[in-house]
Amino acid sequence: MADIIEGRNPVMEALRAERPINRILLSRNVQRHSVIGQILHLSREQGIPVEYVDDAALQKYSSTGATQGIIALAAAKDYISLDDLLKITKAKNEPTLYCILDGIEDPQNLGAILRTADATGFHGIIIRTRRAAGLTAVVAKVSAGAIEYVPVARVTNIAQCLEILKIANVWTVGIDMHGDQAYTKVDYRNPTAVVIGGEGKGISELVRKRCDILAHIPMKGKISSLNASVAAALIMYEAFRQRNSF
Amino acid sequence: MADIIEGRNPVMEALRAERPINRILLSRNVQRHSVIGQILHLSREQGIPVEYVDDAALQKYSSTGATQGIIALAAAKDYISLDDLLKITKAKNEPTLYCILDGIEDPQNLGAILRTADATGFHGIIIRTRRAAGLTAVVAKVSAGAIEYVPVARVTNIAQCLEILKIANVWTVGIDMHGDQAYTKVDYRNPTAVVIGGEGKGISELVRKRCDILAHIPMKGKISSLNASVAAALIMYEAFRQRNSF
Repeated sequence: MADIIEGRNPVMEALRAERPINRILLSRNVQRHSVIGQILHLSREQGIPVEYVDDAALQKYSSTGATQGIIALAAAKDYISLDDLLKITKAKNEPTLYCILDGIEDPQNLGAILRTADATGFHGIIIRTRRAAGLTAVVAKVSAGAIEYVPVARVTNIAQCLEILKIANVWTVGIDMHGDQAYTKVDYRNPTAVVIGGEGKGISELVRKRCDILAHIPMKGKISSLNASVAAALIMYEAFRQRNSF
Repeated sequence: MADIIEGRNPVMEALRAERPINRILLSRNVQRHSVIGQILHLSREQGIPVEYVDDAALQKYSSTGATQGIIALAAAKDYISLDDLLKITKAKNEPTLYCILDGIEDPQNLGAILRTADATGFHGIIIRTRRAAGLTAVVAKVSAGAIEYVPVARVTNIAQCLEILKIANVWTVGIDMHGDQAYTKVDYRNPTAVVIGGEGKGISELVRKRCDILAHIPMKGKISSLNASVAAALIMYEAFRQRNSF
């Protein structure tokens, strides 16, 4: 698979070229080597998560069998920085509309969310580096092509990201089952970033506290939560509807 | 796996007991046998699809290796008849609200739709027997438990089903990209059945013609369709919202 980069030097070169990388997998038994040190340094600089795994787990990804104890999983599409996302959006002369995903781990959900984001004219998706689905080949497929059109920024810290957005005058709306108003009562015509939590966990405590507004999705019935891509779609369509009066 | 019933007599007994069965797989090389004839007869009567497959495909499902050329895939939950669904709904003293799936094949989508149906108080889901996901173990898992609460009726012919619903004074709303009004402009407070088409194909021509109304989901962007469970959720939430004024 073209998505897998194996061995010390190939991984090092990919990092130097700043190729988009989802994760680096490092054997727990990797030999100490100066290149490994440099790789760890560069990956920290670029905010790329590094996972320590067993040799057997590493071998499962390998097609050459010659990993030298290290593999990088390349992304199917470039991430952009939050700065660049803000710049691109500014150039559009529309009130900002972002969807922030606080720990969506299922690639099916991320793919479906990209597809809805394209349909509703959202300016970008913001995801976090750790414990979150990245732009993999599966996500690209599920997105039905939307991965090519919707910019995705990846940040190490969502709470910090909210602070930066506030400085940029973007209103932050967290979707939370204990939110005090229904999501349909929020005004999305101002510059807005909606925050959707991960599957089963919702948005994290720290992130919840930083949101300007918390809104809930009304539910009846016996199950207490919706599929994450469904929840995201309801919010995105409500924003799209308010801005286009349909 | 408890979901797999192997061999002529076990399959025959399951049919006689009217256990819920999603599909029957029959080897192309199955030996002619009077029990096979009876199985084919009963499965036709009960509207259970029969697929002819290679021996190798059959073996993949088998845990005993002794299939005698036949396997039945049991459902994770009972289907009910359309008649029973109408009766159950009548007893609720609320205007009917059904979601009809005209060929949803992805179990992830069916599971998510069941979950949203529970959240929005839909009285039932109607699916078709052929080329459609049934109530499998995967669907049960994705539904997060909703499979236990939302009745699912399975019919062999959706177009015919629409005629029966019309006689029962249920308004039928097809979701179609060429529908003349936005889905938000439809009144769902009357007894209503919404019809959602399959992934990538939409609703079939015959079904489209039988709908009282065709409505579309507005989209901007470059991708021409939404994920099927997202489309269904938007409609179900619009109905739920109109009935509960949030």
